[in-house]
Amino acid sequence: MKNIDEAYMKMALELAKKGWGHVSPNPLVGCVIIKGGEIIGMGYHEKFGQAHAEVNAIRAAGESSRGATLYVNLEPCCHYGKTPPCSELIIKSGLKRVVVGMRDPNPRVLGGGIKQLLDAGIEVETGVLEEESIRLNEIFIKHISKGEPFVILKTAVTMDGRTCTASGDSKWITSDESRRLVHKIRAGVSCIVTGVETVIKDDPMLNVRLEGDWKSPFRIVLDSKGRIPLDSKVLTQDSRNTLVCVTDDAPIHRREMIRGTGAELRVFPKCESGVDLKVLLADIASRGFDSVLVEAGARVNTSFLRSGLVDKVMMFMAPKILTGSESPTWTAGSPPSLMKDALELEGLWAESVGPDILVQGYMKGERSCLLE
Amino acid sequence: MKNIDEAYMKMALELAKKGWGHVSPNPLVGCVIIKGGEIIGMGYHEKFGQAHAEVNAIRAAGESSRGATLYVNLEPCCHYGKTPPCSELIIKSGLKRVVVGMRDPNPRVLGGGIKQLLDAGIEVETGVLEEESIRLNEIFIKHISKGEPFVILKTAVTMDGRTCTASGDSKWITSDESRRLVHKIRAGVSCIVTGVETVIKDDPMLNVRLEGDWKSPFRIVLDSKGRIPLDSKVLTQDSRNTLVCVTDDAPIHRREMIRGTGAELRVFPKCESGVDLKVLLADIASRGFDSVLVEAGARVNTSFLRSGLVDKVMMFMAPKILTGSESPTWTAGSPPSLMKDALELEGLWAESVGPDILVQGYMKGERSCLLE
Repeated sequence: MKNIDEAYMKMALELAKKGWGHVSPNPLVGCVIIKGGEIIGMGYHEKFGQAHAEVNAIRAAGESSRGATLYVNLEPCCHYGKTPPCSELIIKSGLKRVVVGMRDPNPRVLGGGIKQLLDAGIEVETGVLEEESIRLNEIFIKHISKGEPFVILKTAVTMDGRTCTASGDSKWITSDESRRLVHKIRAGVSCIVTGVETVIKDDPMLNVRLEGDWKSPFRIVLDSKGRIPLDSKVLTQDSRNTLVCVTDDAPIHRREMIRGTGAELRVFPKCESGVDLKVLLADIASRGFDSVLVEAGARVNTSFLRSGLVDKVMMFMAPKILTGSESPTWTAGSPPSLMKDALELEGLWAESVGPDILVQGYMKGERSCLLE
Repeated sequence: MKNIDEAYMKMALELAKKGWGHVSPNPLVGCVIIKGGEIIGMGYHEKFGQAHAEVNAIRAAGESSRGATLYVNLEPCCHYGKTPPCSELIIKSGLKRVVVGMRDPNPRVLGGGIKQLLDAGIEVETGVLEEESIRLNEIFIKHISKGEPFVILKTAVTMDGRTCTASGDSKWITSDESRRLVHKIRAGVSCIVTGVETVIKDDPMLNVRLEGDWKSPFRIVLDSKGRIPLDSKVLTQDSRNTLVCVTDDAPIHRREMIRGTGAELRVFPKCESGVDLKVLLADIASRGFDSVLVEAGARVNTSFLRSGLVDKVMMFMAPKILTGSESPTWTAGSPPSLMKDALELEGLWAESVGPDILVQGYMKGERSCLLE
């Protein structure tokens, strides 16, 4: 039974992923209905404001739902939101058994959906592929339970941790497949943060360049002294989608010139490394953003990491070894003296992306909110 | 059929692994015999000079072998070596079908075993889990086909590619599980190469410290100038198992003192980075060694890599981020100016080892001999 349950839950998770980029700040949810060993209904949450996964799957299964088993990666909701509660629909449809990936951390649900099902005499199993279910909805979980955005630090490196040559050449480290995946990730986060050094060096667009209907994230440039070139792409292309973060150190006339491009500019308190990142994160949260992707150089990466603001690291590693003592790596800063001063992650997992390896892990401590 | 064949081949591969450390320079071979969906015999090559995997499995299956299917990760031999040819035994046993992981690159076999089976009317399938079969016997394949040792460069790093703090602290980066696996790897290679800097800094024993019957590899220290401390463990513990490689730059009295410890000392031609590694590799080959494990610091690693002498990189990555611009990484050298000057690997694969990730890959070009 366990293997079968996991196989169907895996299908539900795969379906859920199809909502990526379209349902935020809602969770990614997929649903499969099985009867007599056959799939009689499938569905996923396709778009924010539209039907939940369970509704789509039950609609597909129709009358056959009676006596069937429903697999869903997240506990069915039991409250009236934009749509009526799924728990009621499940009960009404006569489903016999419900298998759940993880409980909904939403304070308005938090076991309530499961309780309603149990009270109605439905057999409920929870925690099937729980780890995968948690990983899939890491953004939703942190945002709904803490009201703070989930921060992903993404980097692309050679096997020796380097991001470019000493002369700054970095095109391209990773494969087409990895770069495409990065665009897909961008499409599912609220905003991207980078540093002015990256803008000066690479002049990135930081948008989503994929076929199909995708939304580009809001762009945030850390630029204490207001040094951003006025002809950089983030200021000339869709500039209203860009925030430039300066401090007192930015000359007034530069601030005005930056504002003149149509971009938003805000003056932030400063700390040792420039813009105070904790204040920035609060600003991001106040915009209702549920997620932040840090795509920056070694200095900004290290500031984020050492401030304890990163939830997850995604490292794309190419099958290359650059060598060269002066080839920059993806972290910097003043050197810690003992190995025990290293920042720790909860453990890593890895997968192949084309010829590259994507290594991911949650920063220690940050992850606790995912498992409460 | 494909899935079933792969499942049994996976078993054969797992059995084969049990020979690690005991069969060199023979290949690792495992064998499973199936009849009517049941395993009727299993075996593996357990010890150099002893029975081959097929012999052990056929012996276990006995008379039931008649009409059965035999799975073996390497083509059965067809020549008289230390044991009679397995192809003859397979024919005599009345096996109906033989599934082979990969052809034997041994010039004395090279398809001959398969041909004998086919000529005898046995159904033969080859190339089932070929990639896994090749990886398992990478050492044997290079050694038998080129007469050269297979060179593995092993490193243990943080996620940002660092091997120690700026002050030199490195204990420990990786987990117990990873360190245990490194000892297991040591037990299966002929020799370990390190640099004198590592000996001075860490004073490693470079032996196998595992429960059970394991052989420690021969130890080789690169020490152009003869600076190795006479009280270092490689010179005081089992010193006859150590070679110190110096060049003309080593003072005569130092050479004598080193020889006085019981260790072997040889004077090698020198090149830009110290001992000429190509000459060292020829020396290693002349000893009949089939494999080399490089466990060294950034300078030696880079010399090996940039000399094109490395076949495979094994990188143990811990769930840690050290940061610090001056924290050493596992490569060094003069910086290449363009990303296209990076050394390339054929692609990477990754697996979890406790909380760590082990990333492995073959250096581009080197691998060709594995696939000929």
